[in-house]
Parts: sequence; C-alpha cells; structure tokens
Amino acid sequence: MTDKKYVYSFGGGSSEGRADMKDLIGGKGSNLAEMASLGIPVPPGFTITTEACAEYYQSGKEQLLERIRPEIEQHLQKLEELTGKTFGAGPNPLLVSVRSGAPVSMPGMMDTVLNLGLNDETLEALIKLTGNRRFALDAYRRFIQMFGDVVMGIKDKDEYNHEYNPLHWAMDQVKEELGKELDTDLTEDEMARVVEACKETYKKYAKEEFPQDPKDQLYRGISAVFNSWNTPRAVRYREINELRGLKGTAVNVQTMVYGNMGDDSGTGVAFTRNPSTGENKFYGEFLLNAQGEDVVAGIRTPKPLETMQEIMPEAYEQLCDIRSKLEAHYQDMQDIEFTIEQGTLYMLQTRTGKRTGPAAVCIAMDMMQEGLIDEKKAVLRVPPNDLEQMLHPQFDPQKIEQAEFLAEGLPASPGAATGRAVFTADEAEEWHERGEQVILCRMETSPEDIGGMHAAKAILTSRGGMTSHAAVVARGWGKCCVAGAGDITMNYGQRQFTAHGQTVKEGDWLSIDGTTGKVYLGQVPTIEPKLSGRFAQLMELADKYRRLGVRTNSDTPEDTEVAIKYGAEGIGLTRTEHMFFEGDRIISFRRLILVAQTVKMLNDKISSAGEDEAEADRIRQKNKAVLDQYQRALDELLPYQRHDFEGIFRELAGRPCTIRLLDPPLHEFLPHDEAGQKAMAEQLNVSAEEVKATVESLNEFNPMLGHRGCRLGITYPEVSEMQVRAILEAAIKVKREQGLEVRPEIMIPLVGAEQELKLTRERAEAVVQQVLQENNCQADEIPYLIGTMIEVPRAAITADKVAEHADFFSFGTNDLTQMGCGFSRDDAGRFLGDYVKLGVYERDPFQVLDQEGVGKMMEMAVSLGRGSKSNLKCGICGEHGGEPSSVKFCHRVGLDYVSCSPFRVPIARLAAAQAAIAEEQ
Amino acid sequence: MTDKKYVYSFGGGSSEGRADMKDLIGGKGSNLAEMASLGIPVPPGFTITTEACAEYYQSGKEQLLERIRPEIEQHLQKLEELTGKTFGAGPNPLLVSVRSGAPVSMPGMMDTVLNLGLNDETLEALIKLTGNRRFALDAYRRFIQMFGDVVMGIKDKDEYNHEYNPLHWAMDQVKEELGKELDTDLTEDEMARVVEACKETYKKYAKEEFPQDPKDQLYRGISAVFNSWNTPRAVRYREINELRGLKGTAVNVQTMVYGNMGDDSGTGVAFTRNPSTGENKFYGEFLLNAQGEDVVAGIRTPKPLETMQEIMPEAYEQLCDIRSKLEAHYQDMQDIEFTIEQGTLYMLQTRTGKRTGPAAVCIAMDMMQEGLIDEKKAVLRVPPNDLEQMLHPQFDPQKIEQAEFLAEGLPASPGAATGRAVFTADEAEEWHERGEQVILCRMETSPEDIGGMHAAKAILTSRGGMTSHAAVVARGWGKCCVAGAGDITMNYGQRQFTAHGQTVKEGDWLSIDGTTGKVYLGQVPTIEPKLSGRFAQLMELADKYRRLGVRTNSDTPEDTEVAIKYGAEGIGLTRTEHMFFEGDRIISFRRLILVAQTVKMLNDKISSAGEDEAEADRIRQKNKAVLDQYQRALDELLPYQRHDFEGIFRELAGRPCTIRLLDPPLHEFLPHDEAGQKAMAEQLNVSAEEVKATVESLNEFNPMLGHRGCRLGITYPEVSEMQVRAILEAAIKVKREQGLEVRPEIMIPLVGAEQELKLTRERAEAVVQQVLQENNCQADEIPYLIGTMIEVPRAAITADKVAEHADFFSFGTNDLTQMGCGFSRDDAGRFLGDYVKLGVYERDPFQVLDQEGVGKMMEMAVSLGRGSKSNLKCGICGEHGGEPSSVKFCHRVGLDYVSCSPFRVPIARLAAAQAAIAEEQ
Repeated sequence: MTDKKYVYSFGGGSSEGRADMKDLIGGKGSNLAEMASLGIPVPPGFTITTEACAEYYQSGKEQLLERIRPEIEQHLQKLEELTGKTFGAGPNPLLVSVRSGAPVSMPGMMDTVLNLGLNDETLEALIKLTGNRRFALDAYRRFIQMFGDVVMGIKDKDEYNHEYNPLHWAMDQVKEELGKELDTDLTEDEMARVVEACKETYKKYAKEEFPQDPKDQLYRGISAVFNSWNTPRAVRYREINELRGLKGTAVNVQTMVYGNMGDDSGTGVAFTRNPSTGENKFYGEFLLNAQGEDVVAGIRTPKPLETMQEIMPEAYEQLCDIRSKLEAHYQDMQDIEFTIEQGTLYMLQTRTGKRTGPAAVCIAMDMMQEGLIDEKKAVLRVPPNDLEQMLHPQFDPQKIEQAEFLAEGLPASPGAATGRAVFTADEAEEWHERGEQVILCRMETSPEDIGGMHAAKAILTSRGGMTSHAAVVARGWGKCCVAGAGDITMNYGQRQFTAHGQTVKEGDWLSIDGTTGKVYLGQVPTIEPKLSGRFAQLMELADKYRRLGVRTNSDTPEDTEVAIKYGAEGIGLTRTEHMFFEGDRIISFRRLILVAQTVKMLNDKISSAGEDEAEADRIRQKNKAVLDQYQRALDELLPYQRHDFEGIFRELAGRPCTIRLLDPPLHEFLPHDEAGQKAMAEQLNVSAEEVKATVESLNEFNPMLGHRGCRLGITYPEVSEMQVRAILEAAIKVKREQGLEVRPEIMIPLVGAEQELKLTRERAEAVVQQVLQENNCQADEIPYLIGTMIEVPRAAITADKVAEHADFFSFGTNDLTQMGCGFSRDDAGRFLGDYVKLGVYERDPFQVLDQEGVGKMMEMAVSLGRGSKSNLKCGICGEHGGEPSSVKFCHRVGLDYVSCSPFRVPIARLAAAQAAIAEEQ
Repeated sequence: MTDKKYVYSFGGGSSEGRADMKDLIGGKGSNLAEMASLGIPVPPGFTITTEACAEYYQSGKEQLLERIRPEIEQHLQKLEELTGKTFGAGPNPLLVSVRSGAPVSMPGMMDTVLNLGLNDETLEALIKLTGNRRFALDAYRRFIQMFGDVVMGIKDKDEYNHEYNPLHWAMDQVKEELGKELDTDLTEDEMARVVEACKETYKKYAKEEFPQDPKDQLYRGISAVFNSWNTPRAVRYREINELRGLKGTAVNVQTMVYGNMGDDSGTGVAFTRNPSTGENKFYGEFLLNAQGEDVVAGIRTPKPLETMQEIMPEAYEQLCDIRSKLEAHYQDMQDIEFTIEQGTLYMLQTRTGKRTGPAAVCIAMDMMQEGLIDEKKAVLRVPPNDLEQMLHPQFDPQKIEQAEFLAEGLPASPGAATGRAVFTADEAEEWHERGEQVILCRMETSPEDIGGMHAAKAILTSRGGMTSHAAVVARGWGKCCVAGAGDITMNYGQRQFTAHGQTVKEGDWLSIDGTTGKVYLGQVPTIEPKLSGRFAQLMELADKYRRLGVRTNSDTPEDTEVAIKYGAEGIGLTRTEHMFFEGDRIISFRRLILVAQTVKMLNDKISSAGEDEAEADRIRQKNKAVLDQYQRALDELLPYQRHDFEGIFRELAGRPCTIRLLDPPLHEFLPHDEAGQKAMAEQLNVSAEEVKATVESLNEFNPMLGHRGCRLGITYPEVSEMQVRAILEAAIKVKREQGLEVRPEIMIPLVGAEQELKLTRERAEAVVQQVLQENNCQADEIPYLIGTMIEVPRAAITADKVAEHADFFSFGTNDLTQMGCGFSRDDAGRFLGDYVKLGVYERDPFQVLDQEGVGKMMEMAVSLGRGSKSNLKCGICGEHGGEPSSVKFCHRVGLDYVSCSPFRVPIARLAAAQAAIAEEQ
C-alpha cells in the first residue's frame, strides 16, 4: 500500500475534502464535502478518488480494489460510528448509495446504485425499524433491479430485436397478473411477490443467487461505477463535449436517507434565486412523502417550494438558512437537492445554478448591490452570449406551445418574426411596399436578393449553413433567419414549399424562430425585448473596465442608429456594395459594368500611346460613345453614394466611420439566370446576348480569389475615385450644414502586397485633395484616415511594409480564415462538420476565431505593423468581432477596437470588459 | 563651382574612367575608357557624368550647364591638343559625336547627334582636308537633319495626321525633283542642293538660321541628350524594364571617325566568338567604305569578317590582337564595333556579347579549358534558363523562315512539334492509336482531357495564360504547348479553327513552337537536341558545387526515365490523380464517386450507432448493395495503382519517391457536359439524372478552397487507404522481385492544421503496418516516410506543430501562392498583367517565387518545423522548383532539395550550383 490517500470522508460536521478538489473527488463529492464543512446537514459518507479510477484502468482492476480495500473498510467503520448503524447487519442497518461523480458533470452518462446494503436479513431489520413493510420491500426491489442492471448488465432482446431490462419486465408481469397499473397500487404482499419475481429473474440471467454479502455488493457497485467511465457511450460523450485530460470518475458512497417514509418526509429541488428572471426569491419544487427520483420521473406533480412553509415550517426555515449560507459561501446562485427524512433535513447536492440571460444579468447586478460580489466579479459573472436573448424579440412562451410546428433548420440569426411567405426577392420588396410583413423563403440567397432580404421581416432558406449568405447578411442586420431547413422542399414555379406533408403557399402566414431554428405555421405572437435598468447598469460597468473600443458594422443610417443605442462608438465597417443594389442604382451600376472591360482596354491603349497625345485623342474620339456611357454611369452613382454617406455621417454625429471601397467581384452585380439577363437587357436597351456575354466573361473559377477588392480599384480606378469623392463631399456637406464632426476612414480591401496599397492610396489621396480644394477646406476640417483591411495572409506576413502606407489596419477575419486555412465558407460545409467532430478545429473557425492559426497571423500583423508605425490603429471587422472568445483574443493581442453587427455590440462590450479584468487578475 | 568632377576624359592611351564606373559614366563611356586604358585605339573624347544629368533636373538646366562649362571647355581643349584639330575652325576641324550612355543599355530610347562641329566654314575645311566634297556635304546634311530632329524636335503632320520629319522630307523632295531614288545616286552638286534645302527647312521650322557656332551646337546637343532621359517613352521603358535607382544618362563627346572615306576605310561589328554556337572563332561582318549606321540600316549587305583579312590585312591583324586582348581582359566573349578611317583602326564599342544557350555552355567550358576562367566562374557564366533551348527539339532555323505563319500565342511549354490538328481529347487518343501524330487544338483544356493531351504531340489553346491547365500540364510533361493564341477562333462543331482568315480543318498539318509561341501551317522539319560533351561537363561541375538535391515531378515510368537521364536524384512529386484518368480506371473511379456521399452518410450512421453492433449490422445489411459497389470500385482500382507505382519504383532503382495522395476535388473526375454525363451514365448503367445530380451536388463555389486534398482522405478514408496499400504492396513486390531498394515517401496534401496530418498519418500508418505484416516484412525492408505538403498558409504559420507529425515537408508553392496572395491561378489573368506592369509584383508570382511574401512563409515554416524536428527533410515541388531565381532562394532558406519537371532538372542543377558558389563568395 502506498502513502497515497484514495478515500475522503464527509459529513458529521467535518470533511476531508474541499470544494476546490473537484479534479480529485469530483463535482458531487467536493460539494458534499464543502457543505458538510460548513455545518450544513449532509448524509455522511466518503468519496473514492478519480486517481483510484485512473489506476483501476492502469494497474489492473483487481489490484486497485485490493489496494484501496483497507482504506474503504476504515471509512466504512467510521461511517458506522458516525451514524450508529451497522453495514449489512444488526437492528439498525446502514444502507448506502453508490454514485459516480466526475470532475465535470456528464448528465445521464454514468451509473448509480441505491439502497445498497439490503439483503434478506437487513430487509427484516428495516421493516422492524421503520414499521413500514411496503416501504422496505419497495426499497429492496429497487435495489435488486438497479444492481441487476448497473452491476450485472442484465438485459435481453425481444422478438423485434429491441433491448429491454428483464428485471423491470418481471415487475410488470406481476402487475399485469394482478391487474394493477401503478407501482403505488401494489399492496405489501403484492410487493413481496415482486421482490421474489425480481430475485428469480436475477438468478436466471446472472446465474447466481442475488448476492447477500453487503461488502460483496459494495465492491461490485464501486467497480460498476468505475466501469461506467469507459463505456463507448461515455467516451463518445467526452469526445463530443471535448472533455479532455480527466483522470476518471470519483465514487461517492453515502448513507441513504428516505423522503418517502411518511408525511413527515419529503424531497425537493430548488434554486436559490429564480433561474428564469433572476428575481431574488427562493424558487423550487417539493414533494411530500417521495424519493428524489419520483420528482424526476414526473409520476406525481410536485408543489411549489412555498407550500413546504406550511407543511414543515421548521424544515423550511432551516432550508432558508442553508440557502443564505450557500449563497454567502459560493457567492452565486445555487441549484440544490434536499430530502427530509422523518422531520430531519438533509442536503444531497449543491451546484452553481444554470440560468437564462436575463436572470444572469439580474443576479449579477443584485448580488453586487447586496455586497455579495464586487463589480469585477459581477462583470465576469454574465456569459456575454447570454445577452443575445435580451436583444431580440421572442415568441410569447405561453403561445409557442400551441403553435403548429412545421420544420426545423439552423438558428442562423436570432430573434422571432411572423410574416407572409414570399418566394422571390422582388416580391418581398413589392409586398413590403404595400405594407405587408413578409418572410422571404428561398433555397439559398445571393447578393442579387439583398433588396428583398432587407425588405423581409425574416429569411428562411432550405439550404446553406450558419455561414451561408442568408445567415451572414441577416446576422449583420440583426434580422431573424432560419437557414438550411432541409425538410423543406421549395417549389418556386408553384410559389410554395412543402415540409412534412404540409404545403405553404405564397401569402400564407409563417412564424420563424431564429434563436431555436424552428418554423411554425400561422402567426405566433412575439414579445419585444425590454432592456431593464440592470442591463444598462451592467453595460455601464463593462464600459468602466474595458479597454477595447467597440464599433459596429453598418451600411445604413437605420442600423447605425440601433448600434449607437447599443453603445457602438463608431462604425468599423460600411460595405459600400450593398448600396449599389438599391432601386435605380443597380441600373447605373450594371450599365457601368457592361462597358467596364472595353473602357479598361481603351485606357490601356491610351496610356500606351504615351507622349503621342494625338493618338490618344484619336482613340478617345473614336470610342466616345462607350467612354461617355461609362462616365454617365459614374455621374449617376455619385449622388446616390454621397447621399448614403451623408445619412450615416449624420447618425454618427462625430463618431469615426470606416468605409470600405467596393469589394465583391463585378459578376455579383449581374443576373445569372436567363430571365434576369433578359430584364436587364431591356432595362439597359442592349441585346440579351451582350448581357450574357458580359456575365460569362466575368465568370470566375474561384470568385473568392478573383478579381475583387483593391484589384477592382486598380483596374477600374474611376469607380474608387467616384466613391472617395462621394465620401469626402458627403463629409464636407454634413460638417458644414449640420455642424457635426465627420471622421471618415477610407478602407482599401483585399490588399496582399505593399504596392497595391501604395498605389490605391495615392490615387485616393489625390481625389481627397482635389475635393478639399474644390470646397476650400481647411487642412483639418475633415480629419480623414486611409487604411487597409488585413484579410490576405500575405498582407499579414508582410505587415511591416504594408503599414508604411496605412493609417490603420482592420482585420477581415472571415477572408483571412478562408485564405489562411484554405477553405471557402460556401463549400466548407461538406467537411467542416466532420472537422469539428474529429477535433481538427475545436470550433467552427468561421464562428469562433482560430486563435492558433488565423490569430497568429493577426498577432504577427499587429506586431510587424506597429513595429514600422507605432501609432497604427488596429481593429477587426470580421464577424468574429462580436464573438466573446474572439473579442477577448482581440483584447489580448492589443487591438484598438472590435466591430460587429449592431445587435452584438453589447456582447462585445461585456466580453471586452471581461478580457480586461481577466488580464488584471 | 564645386569640387565634384563632372567630366572624364578617354583616349590617347589613357583614361580618367574605368570599366567599373558604369553608374557614373554609363556603359558606353566606361567601356571606351577601359579600352583606351588598355592601349586599344579609341577615338578620343570625354564623358559627362550621370550625376550631371541628375543635377540638370534637380538644380535647373541652365545652372547645371553653367556649372560644368569650364570643365567641358578644359576637356575640349585637351581633345584639340590630343588630336591636333580645332573645334569648329581652322584647316583641320574637330568634329564630334554626342551620344547618350546610360548605366544600363536602353536601346533606341535616347538620342545621338553626329558630325557636330560642322558649319559653313568647317565644311569647306573638311572638303579641302579630305578632298572629298560629296562626303563632306553628305556629313553636313546628316548633321543638319539630326540636329533639327534631336535638338530642335522639328516635326510636322500630314493630311492624315501622321507625323513626319520635314528635314528628311526636304531631301526626298530634291531627290524626287531630280528623279533619283537612292541617296548614293546623288552627285556632289545635287548633294549641295540637299544641304541648302535642309537649311531652308530648318529655318522655316526653327525660326532661326542653322546655328554656326560649334560651342552653341555642342551645348544644345548635350542638353538634348539630357532631355532625352525623361521623355515619356524613356520613362515608360524604364518602368517596364524595372530599371530603378538610376541617376540619369551620361553624355559621350567623342572625336568623329569616318569609315566612308574611301576604299582604305570601312566599318564592322563582330563577336569575339560565335554567338550562336559558341565556337572559338572570330565572327562578324564588315563593310568597305561605309559608316556604322549603313550596316545597321541594311542598305548594303555586309561581308563576312574574314574578307577583311584580304582587303586590309594589317587592320585585320590588329583587330585580332584586340580581340585577344579584350577577351583576356574581360574574361568573356565581347560584342565589338570598329571603324577604319583611311587605314587606321578605331574601336568604337565593346560589351559583353549576347549568346544562345548552346553558345553560353560552349564558351564557358572552352574558356575554362583555356584557363581564362576557373570552374566556379564557368558555372556562374551560364544563365540556367538558357539550357532550356538545348533540351527540346527546335525547328530547323533554315526552314522556319520559309514556313507559313498562322498565329501567335504564349510560349507556354518550350520545344517544337508538328502534327495533324484534332479538336477533342478523345480524337487525339484515337488518332494516336492509329499511329498518327496529332496536335490537340482546344479553347482550353480541363482534367478530363488528360488522356488526349498525353496522346498528342503538342497542345494549342486559344484561351488561358502561362499557368492555365494546358500550360502547366504540358510543362510538367515537357510537351510542347502554345497557349492563349487569341487570334485563333475555335469551331468545335465544324472541327476547324480560323486565324487571320486562314482555316485549319481536322487532319491538317500544323507546326507549333512552344519556345516562341508561334504557330505555322504545314510541316516544318525539327532538329533534335544534342547534349554535347560540354553540356555533360557543365552538369558535372554543377553537381560538384551544389548542395541542394534535385528531384523531378513525374507521374509515369517514361517521365521518370527522362528525368533520371537529366540527373534527377529521385521523385519529389507523383500526382496519383492523373493515374485515375487512364483507360478503364476512370470507370471504376466514377463508380466510386457516384456512391461516395451515400457511403459517407452510412458510415456516419454506423459510427453513431456506437456500441450498438446490432444496429450497425442492420445498417450494413440494408445498404449492402451500395457498400458493395463502393468496395468493388476500390478493389478494381487497387491493382491499377499498384501497377503504376511498380513501374515508377523500378525506373527509380532505389531513389526516393514522394507520392501524393489524391488531391483534386472529386468533381474534376466527372464530365460536366451533357454528352459526357450521358456517356458516363450508359457506361455505369445508371440514369443520366443520377450522374447529373452527383455532378451538381459536388459542384463548388471555390473549388480551389474546396473539398480536396487531405479533406477527401478524412471524409473518404477508404480511398487513401487503398492508395497507401497500393504503394506498399508495389514497394514490396519490386524490392523482392527485382531486388531493388524502394524508398516511398507518402505525402499528405493540403494540410492546414496539425490535427489533419495527425489523423491522416495515423490512418496511413495503420495500413502500412498491416501490409508489412501481411507480407512478413522486416522492420527496415521498406524504409518509408510519411510527410506533408506545405501549401496552406496556416500550415506554414503553425509549422512547429505540423512538423511533430511529419517526416518531411514539401512546399506546394503553386497553392501557397494562390492562398497566400489570395488569387486564383485560373482567374488572376484579369489583373496580374496590370500588376506586373505596375510593379505590384516584380514578376508573375506563379512563375517566379514571390520571395518577400510566399518566400517568407516558407522561411517561417522551415525554421519552425526544424525547431521542433531538427532532421525534418524539406523540399519544394511547386513549379517554382525549376525556376532559377526560385531555386537559388530554396538554397538560401536551407531546403534539402527542389523538384521540377524532367526537362527542368538540368536547369535546377545549374541554378543550385550557382547559389552555392554565390553563397561562398
């Protein structure tokens, strides 16, 4: 025997274990030990360590049991002394439960044996002791069933090859013979028949009599719990939940107490505060004369905890004291289990209680005000993602239960919405203009659908994942979206979809829940989120502690307004391309695209002519029509763009605004179907063939790696120049007319090489200077910056050089992930599921920043960039900017701000504060 | 006046400049100075420095001229003393040429004035002195014309707006009036009329009399040369040729000498050795009684240099002496110009002579043997790419001149070939089987065409660039290819193409030159390359000095044989996917693809069943048909693959062989057109709809970033397992049957994350161990390695972790460039041209490794990888592995080997040696 301690006792007012020994004695064991130490009544017992479990597998099962036997016997003896009972013998027999207790909760994964220590002899003693034969017999049959199931693994298959437990079947047989339906209908004698039937069945399957030696029962029980650690089911559970580095399960051997010993007994579960609302009120359920498992099984309906106050005032008062003691001790809301055995209260479990988002906020703020925790702890207490629930409308929980479920997809963008089904983006816009509330239903969406997506109340797609076009765009807008509802079959032709035999036609009402992914038929009422005072208080605290700035991604004045309400300190990303889709602009822009390649060719020719101005003029004259058409399109777009920026600048009222120049490849702006091309041809008064030819000539093998971003600006400088002009003109106008400060930050996308930025910056700078001059601007009237996105790996790697031409870096982590990891967001669905399952990436890198790889590129870029320009401003505008663990990473690598969709601004503020506090500690 | 020296004299047996002062006094000036110092007769003169030119622009034109005037006058005086002539006066007038001379040759970009110093007075003196009035008048009219053109910029436009030079037109007018055609037809008096006409025209346009003051002429001439440095044309030339950091042009003022002063005069150009063959024989052309410009103008046909030996034996002997002196001094073959003025030889120019590849090899080896240069210099002397010309067949230079030119495209893969035009890959195979020699003509090629491409003698495409599919595949095979011949319009329907009005029908003979990009009608005879003894000798030297290993990329025994002949030390990349296209295999592979997704789904279900073996069995039973079909396809492919590997292993005879597991996305193996899908459906006995549905379901938005590489192996492990089994079984067979060592290196592609490699490696390792056991192999019987490609940026960034699971890294720089720089090879054509022109990238990064960005990732990966595994073998298998500057980079970052297509192996060997020698120095 080694010196190592394998067994820790608890109960009787003291414990060998502590709450912080979870790794060694498991979650249940450590909390029982802690409660006992606090003087809280706990049925005494002892815990066998997780190390014992580990050695059970390493050094042989029998060897380990032999090694720890003396220590167990010693603790058993101590337990007998403490309780005044005798294990498996005497007039007052000691009965115990044997339960698993891993360091991390693995609900339902591992095994438990209750009432261990019963045999034919102690049964009689128990009958005498309690004067309750039926109770004792019932306990015995439960023990035989559990032992047969858990320890012996008794099972059988029926004619349909389905597994069943013969020990339960034996009881059911007896009940059937007796014509009794419920267990509680059985009389004492009938229960005795059940015990006999169970024993016989046990013998038939186990090829032995039911074991009568309590120690034999105990060691076999302990082994069974150890064995349950490594069932395929448990191993798989740990894999899926990424529970790594655990030694094994502890085993808790604890004196049995019974809540079903009459009307002075009972059992209950409770939360020390309301887990739904956070209200500081004791909240739970109680069942008279019942065992804990009865509450769980739902056979009888438990009563609210308050009822206990009348029935058992003393026990209730004691319980309230314990509640205060536990909260004071754990400094958090607790989830507890208790049993009252003949008037005596025992605590069986305490653990930190799960809660809703609103409850988390409420509890943290209340506890802070109560002086239980300090400000920092209060900030750390709320999981940032929990705030999401508070920011979107929800279906009325009362009504949703009656709603008719239709299909389920991915919870792509949270919130709840009702509307009438439409099947094309155009219809969505038309219906919306008529004042209808619509839900756009598509197989998948594309940039062409932007207008309709914006007009719709919510979006439903039958294909695509969490990062499909629909999902990304909807999240950006905080618009409800269910994506990839695979049960739905869209039929555009007939303007309807079917799901599980139901057909939904154009105009039918739908209700979709982007938080759960569920789709319902008809109109389910929603409730609007209320941002309580406590929410505001938490946000104030977050702002007090965070160092990281929080901006928003927004393309419209409306979104900007929402984001500012949620605390955004500026805009980190305005995508100008969305602006090209609205109304007439798309016509002008398509006219421009139609001749862009020709113009580019002409410009090349003109520039080749070099000093030969006459030749250049000749080219210009000869191609006047096409050059004019190009210029006219640009002239038409300029006021639109200017107007867009004016609205945003006004809303921002002096806050900075990062505006990204045109990014997507041009073909995204053209219709790809025949009908769309025909319509475009008519609108532009050209042949459909010409449109088709342009679409085809712009077609790309890998659009993600294609002709887009700053590459567009380099080949078609006129478009960028128009955009830069629109930005500056809008800035000057708002500054002069409204007297508001305007701080535009012009962002050049997709830079991979120093020279790209240098060139594009020089051209932009020239336009800026020209506009400033035209308007007689003072040097500092419009304090503008010009910077770049870092989204191409090469730019991150050579950031020292890129920084020489940048006032700021903004990490486009979506694309940096795509190029850095080498997978396309649109295509990765085929393998990314497997990848996360197999642990290639711990989480989907498009949702949670891949810190090890993509994050390392960011770190390199920040450090190289600031190495050559110490005051380089660094931010992030990828979707990761609103994901808590990614925000914390951004804090750690020293970014200046994160930018995220309006609805994630509060989440980012809280995550940033938590990162700052964590760093301090 | 500062202390700075602006003017350097040369001639008369001494010089103030030297050959290594190119930056200061230009290429021409420094070589003239050097020759003069060597005692070689050079018409004396002086050079005004490039610094003067720089200051001419910086500090004002007039100021600079004022500042250097005293120095110029001083040198002019010295020149008068040396020559005994007087500038612009007296009976023996000094006439000079004023020529530009930049540090780097900019042919035809800048200006020259000859015969400067002539005026009405010196004309008479010259007539008297030479006794040749016609000669003197002709010199004068040339001077007026040049001065008017170069210094005064006289020009005019005709009615069609075309520019012309009125001074030349004046002469043409006189000739027309006189009915004379050639200049040489004019008599003395007629030439006098020309001089008058030129002077009048000059006056008309320049609004002044032709300047009579020689110093005025001189300074205006010098200014004109300085001005020519910054014309748009010259600026653009420097941009295009990336000539950066130059100060300006020098100006050479040099005494005129005349080769047209009678039959004791003449002029010539020569190479000190034959620039085509390298033969050590004086080689050049000579023209009696002529000026240098007459040779260039091609008015008279010059005679071989040898003829001079008879006509002017003394001068010839002197020239031969100079030849030896120059070669001994410059230690390289020289390109010289000379003039004999009335029996006196003057050297006007010497510079390193351009030469063909074979000549470069011959000259280097000869000079080494002659003791002129040492081994290292000889190795450094040959530009590696020049070897290319020696390795491929060429068109007979005699015959190509008469060939009928048809079109021109990109020189995508060097060599020359003739064959009959076919328009589909299938026909190429059919015709090839009939014994026909064919050229496959396509708009572009795709992986489906592989069979036909292989069968064809050469490939011609009308679209695509240097890195299009056709180009890459053809280069890999060393097969001649002309890509992107935009003048050609393919018409598949009529099985013909048209170009410049010519129509080529199926079966017509074509000749295509992949070295020049030219396409000819008919059969042009080719000559096979001869690898002379000198080539072998050079290669031997290269191997002596290089440290870097050189392997080849090869997928077949045939290519392997060629590569070994060229010195490959093993295979660095075998692409197994090409093997799937041949013959019946594609049927088996397509059968596999058709059910792969279903099988994957079933396997997931089976694995979810977990411990429930019965459920797993039920799934297997129920889907037996599809699982069987999958297994059968795998079983069919195994022997094919094994056979492929056997052939390669045999050819390698013990050399190592890196084999990449299946890499491209599955849809590349399926037909994308309706006809192909129908054919496949018939072959596989399924419906065309099923085939179409599979193709569509596998379709990807960005295939480059899609479901390929190790991702395939992770979702479809059975395919990788089959491949690994084939490799090991083949290895054992060849080892045992042939007694040859086999060293397979299994390469896992597209790894981005440590876990991908870990997982795939574990699975591969299991198969390897199984096959070794099945065959009772000793532990070291087959010394295999398992490693990975580094082609995803994330893998390079996290190479320390990846290396833990890799025996070797092989850089896939094609994909690393695509993902690192963020552009797709197939799409970048739209902007990459502009990018190179604008200097965003100095060279096309797909052809020449982007050392700053992609190279930095490689450096990181090597250093991180070896940090965690010091003996990590590192190589490169991207196309850059055969590009000299990239090979040198690979040497510098410490790779163990490069791998390239068979025909580039000698190039890589030479480049590697040059890198090693450069490092030493």
